[in-house]
Amino acid sequence: MKLSARNKIKGTITEVKIGSVMAKVAVRIADGTIVNSMITIDSVEDMDLKVGDEVYAIIKSTEVMIGK
Amino acid sequence: MKLSARNKIKGTITEVKIGSVMAKVAVRIADGTIVNSMITIDSVEDMDLKVGDEVYAIIKSTEVMIGK
Amino acid sequence: MKLSARNKIKGTITEVKIGSVMAKVAVRIADGTIVNSMITIDSVEDMDLKVGDEVYAIIKSTEVMIGK
Amino acid sequence: MKLSARNKIKGTITEVKIGSVMAKVAVRIADGTIVNSMITIDSVEDMDLKVGDEVYAIIKSTEVMIGK
Amino acid sequence: MKLSARNKIKGTITEVKIGSVMAKVAVRIADGTIVNSMITIDSVEDMDLKVGDEVYAIIKSTEVMIGK
Amino acid sequence: MKLSARNKIKGTITEVKIGSVMAKVAVRIADGTIVNSMITIDSVEDMDLKVGDEVYAIIKSTEVMIGK
Repeated sequence: MKLSARNKIKGTITEVKIGSVMAKVAVRIADGTIVNSMITIDSVEDMDLKVGDEVYAIIKSTEVMIGK
Repeated sequence: MKLSARNKIKGTITEVKIGSVMAKVAVRIADGTIVNSMITIDSVEDMDLKVGDEVYAIIKSTEVMIGK
Repeated sequence: MKLSARNKIKGTITEVKIGSVMAKVAVRIADGTIVNSMITIDSVEDMDLKVGDEVYAIIKSTEVMIGK
Repeated sequence: MKLSARNKIKGTITEVKIGSVMAKVAVRIADGTIVNSMITIDSVEDMDLKVGDEVYAIIKSTEVMIGK
Repeated sequence: MKLSARNKIKGTITEVKIGSVMAKVAVRIADGTIVNSMITIDSVEDMDLKVGDEVYAIIKSTEVMIGK
Repeated sequence: MKLSARNKIKGTITEVKIGSVMAKVAVRIADGTIVNSMITIDSVEDMDLKVGDEVYAIIKSTEVMIGK
C-alpha cells in the first residue's frame, strides 16, 4: 500500500520506552539527529519495534513547521 | 524562546510554492531526503523563506509515525 | 512496509478537488459517511488518485477526538 | 455548537484504557473496523466515556491520509 | 454533542480568506492575540463563517506546544 | 530562531502532571481560559517547566478548528 504522507526519513531505533498507553520511540537519522515519535503501545507491540531496527519516521506534510 | 517540539532537522530549502492560502516548502536534509512542509503563505512572507535558506524542519513528537 | 498509524478505514473515492498546493479527497466509507482528507496535490498526482478508487482513510490515533 | 471538523464517524465504544495522563478509547464503526482515539484522561472523566456508549470519532480533514 | 477536545478559546472573527480548497479564518481572542485557523472552504460555507462572528478556536491538547 | 507556527498565546502554567511518557501542562491565558498541552516528559524536564512559569501556548494553524 502506498501512503499519501510524503515525508519518510530513514533511521535506526535507539530507544523504546513503554508508557501506560503511549510509547516513545527514538530514531537516529543519517546526520545523527534524534527524531522522537510518540505512538501507542499497541503499535509498538504489533510491529515488534525494538532498538536497532531500521525504520522510517513518517510525517504528514501539514504537520511540519519551519524554523529559521 | 525554547520550544517543546523535540524534533528539529537541519536542511536547505529547495522549493517554495505559493498557493492561495497555503504554501509548500521543500527542505533537503543531510541524507538527501526531501521533507515537505505545508504552512501558511503568511508565514512564508513573514519569515521571507526562499530557496537556499538554511532552516529547520520542526515536528511535534506526537505527529511522527513509524514505518517498518 | 507496516505503519504505526492504527486507523485504516476502507472506502471509495467520491471526489477529488485539486487546489493550488492542497487537494481535497472525499472517501465514502461502508456506512455511507463521507470522510474528507486534505493532502498535497503532489500526493494526488503521485498516487494517481481518482473517483472510484478503493482506498483507505488512514489516521494516527492521537488525531482522533470523541464526540458524545 | 457546530464544529468545523468535517469528519464524524458513528460507532460504539468497545474499550477504554486509562493511562497516566492519556487514555485509549476504541470505537467500533459500522463495518466492524476499530478506530482508536488517544485523548486525555480528563476528557474521559468529564464525558464519562465507557464501553457501550454510542459516540462519534471526529477527525479534522487535514489529519486524514490516504493509502492505496 | 460534547467534544473531547479540551481547549476552547472564545473570540471574534477578524478575517476570512477563501483559498482554492483551504481557507484562513483569523480569530481575535480576549487579550488581542490573533489565532489563525486553516480549515476547508466547505466548513466556512457550511458554517457561514464571516467577519464579526463570535466563535471558539478549538484545539486538541496533543496539538499544543509550549514555548518558554 | 523564528517559527512558522503562527499562534502564540501568552499565559501562566497552573499545573504540570507528569505521566509515564507524556505530561499534561495546563496554561491559564488572559481571559482565564485554561489551555491544556500534552507534551513529552522529556520536554518538561529539558525546559524545566513548573507552575507559575510565564510561557506561550503555540499551535500550528492547521490544527485549529472553529466552533460556532
